Amino acid sequence: MYLIKIGGGKDINWPGICRDIASLQSREPVMVVHGANALRNEISEKLSVPVKTVVSPSGISSVFTDQEALDIFLMAYAGLANKKIVALLQQNHVNAVGLSGVDGRLWQARSKKDILVQEGRKVKLKRGNLTGRVEKINVDLINTLLHHSYMPVICSPAISFENEIVNTDNDWAMAIMAESLKIKKIISLFEAPGLLRNHEDENSLISHIERDQIDLYMEYAQKRMKKKMMGAKRALEGGVEIIYWGDGRVESPIKSVLEGNGTIIR
Amino acid sequence: MYLIKIGGGKDINWPGICRDIASLQSREPVMVVHGANALRNEISEKLSVPVKTVVSPSGISSVFTDQEALDIFLMAYAGLANKKIVALLQQNHVNAVGLSGVDGRLWQARSKKDILVQEGRKVKLKRGNLTGRVEKINVDLINTLLHHSYMPVICSPAISFENEIVNTDNDWAMAIMAESLKIKKIISLFEAPGLLRNHEDENSLISHIERDQIDLYMEYAQKRMKKKMMGAKRALEGGVEIIYWGDGRVESPIKSVLEGNGTIIR
Repeated sequence: MYLIKIGGGKDINWPGICRDIASLQSREPVMVVHGANALRNEISEKLSVPVKTVVSPSGISSVFTDQEALDIFLMAYAGLANKKIVALLQQNHVNAVGLSGVDGRLWQARSKKDILVQEGRKVKLKRGNLTGRVEKINVDLINTLLHHSYMPVICSPAISFENEIVNTDNDWAMAIMAESLKIKKIISLFEAPGLLRNHEDENSLISHIERDQIDLYMEYAQKRMKKKMMGAKRALEGGVEIIYWGDGRVESPIKSVLEGNGTIIR
Repeated sequence: MYLIKIGGGKDINWPGICRDIASLQSREPVMVVHGANALRNEISEKLSVPVKTVVSPSGISSVFTDQEALDIFLMAYAGLANKKIVALLQQNHVNAVGLSGVDGRLWQARSKKDILVQEGRKVKLKRGNLTGRVEKINVDLINTLLHHSYMPVICSPAISFENEIVNTDNDWAMAIMAESLKIKKIISLFEAPGLLRNHEDENSLISHIERDQIDLYMEYAQKRMKKKMMGAKRALEGGVEIIYWGDGRVESPIKSVLEGNGTIIR
């Protein structure tokens, strides 16, 4: 089984990806996790609600999620993006079912309401953050759908152990899901050819990473790529054998990445 | 099994309804269909996209759905409302799974792109309406979830036979779903005590309607109630034995309606 994660950038080639998924799933089961950050930013802008970002003391940037931000998140991810992807897959004869991490408590997260943020040279405690880290998966719901030939198409948010809706990191959730479902192969598509030595030069692709050397490559990961690196590391620890990172913008993104274009971690 | 439909008005008592659902489902399986029109209107207003309504030659008012309207519909219904209801049910220990009619082709609709609308004294053909009428239900998906103890929480939109997302009438979809699933009991909650003889007087409740006399009561139905009447009629034709109409704003809406407050059609 393949777990395919698709980033939420604005130039992702969804029609091409959905065609590739239809072709791949005729040979092997597939499940999908997707983002929608470009859409979320667009809706935030239209509603004049700026996306608030914070930087952790270790330098990782993430979105600060208050109730207003979470509402827009639900609209963009679970509403607009998820259902359009499901319809596109249905047009490709894939019987997709869209779910958020809230549904059936699919993604259960430990909430972290108070977070440490770096503001200039100071580290501050910031309260009221509606986020959490996924720790537990409803394996039964996924298996029930797969056994009845439905393809789960999953997105954030998650649900906390106290049953509150919480924003969560997709890459981490994907790693926990792979471990829980004993998935061995992950494909992750985004708006770059893979991991780059110089993130401003698309010709500086790193094509192979040995799994025990992943920490050595952390220095090349900029911004969102840091989360992908951490998610990949966690996935490998959880039993994943191969991770393909590739370009979601090309003609045939999944075919391309499986032909060896992109970064392969194993 | 009860099929419970809850309107999307702004004064619906969701916490009370979810408590009642938790209590009811300890005795009998339940599935939920919900609206979100107040939320949709609110988001439309914030985005400065007015909700366009049209009136059919027979005098029934409905929303005209172009792509922009459909996007907002997806945000409000499948995104914000659906996931918040699921979380609220989870807080009441109900293992709810939210689905739109698009997911797994749950609600399959015949699209009607061109519609006749009454404009003043003229009847005109209006094109580009992304709506359809539900004709077919994916019974397997519902039964799969119910057999694994998940409560389906369903909302519009539907998917057309050509796999396009289409807005649809919830009351009609509910009737087709009841027939397909052989459901005998429907509870429908909205922002009124039931069907009123005078829609401006909440004390003019019609408490009982004989099923073969439903047409005689059509004259009392104003605006949205007309669709509820047509949905109810279709549901009775499809084998439903009893329909409870009641007030979704009270302390304990489902308990109240089952105690005989509201309009009972049988």
